Amino acid sequence: MAIAIAEAEAAGMRGEVPVGAVVVKAGEVLSRAGNRVEERADPTAHAEILALRAAAERLGEPRLEECDLWVTLEPCPMCAAAISFARIRRLYFGAYDAKGGGVDHGPRIFDHPTCHHRPEVVGGMEESRMAELLRAFFRERR
Amino acid sequence: MAIAIAEAEAAGMRGEVPVGAVVVKAGEVLSRAGNRVEERADPTAHAEILALRAAAERLGEPRLEECDLWVTLEPCPMCAAAISFARIRRLYFGAYDAKGGGVDHGPRIFDHPTCHHRPEVVGGMEESRMAELLRAFFRERR
Repeated sequence: MAIAIAEAEAAGMRGEVPVGAVVVKAGEVLSRAGNRVEERADPTAHAEILALRAAAERLGEPRLEECDLWVTLEPCPMCAAAISFARIRRLYFGAYDAKGGGVDHGPRIFDHPTCHHRPEVVGGMEESRMAELLRAFFRERR
Repeated sequence: MAIAIAEAEAAGMRGEVPVGAVVVKAGEVLSRAGNRVEERADPTAHAEILALRAAAERLGEPRLEECDLWVTLEPCPMCAAAISFARIRRLYFGAYDAKGGGVDHGPRIFDHPTCHHRPEVVGGMEESRMAELLRAFFRERR
């Protein structure tokens, strides 16, 4: 999770919402990414999407079997659905996101019978630190 | 929608689930794409995501103001959330997708209070033709 936090901090320095993500397989970091929506002018360039795509490219496979995703914030519905398509084994996330989250909030993507793959989910890791990272970012921008 | 159908058919010929999408702004086609999940080994490479990303790249803006998306099938939850982030004005889609859809089925992405932008939605266009395209594809693959 330290790598995900470093990616989140780097994203914040670039003026992006500070979120970072890492894909790990058998103890090896396959990919790491921070949010790049503004820089790339890409509405889908969330940290999770970029990390999933990079890991899939590396494996040459759209399905990331036996891979885990670490991310600093509860994934939004878009990223949660992508995590399911990518067959991520375990999702570890930091702060819960009542406003934008799609795992434990809003559409609760994994809870629908039409969701074909539900990862194991460990949420709320280092909650206070992660929440502070976001709060500090939005405080500065106001 | 004819362009979206052509993209769907081309995707089917490549062995991908036959879905096609087009982004239009003021009568001009900004981007067109078919599903390329297998070819690109990218779990996020649905037609809608590729079309949204290409349109955003062309406009140099992650938010596609005044743009409409035409797609042959009801978008999945990932694509529906991406459509919302991209601020698509109107979503026109073909066949309803009770198994994988995320607009009128499953997580119903646009119906949550945490969904910040809800496009106008016109669903079920040329329903029988679109459904037949998919049925033919899965029939052949069995």
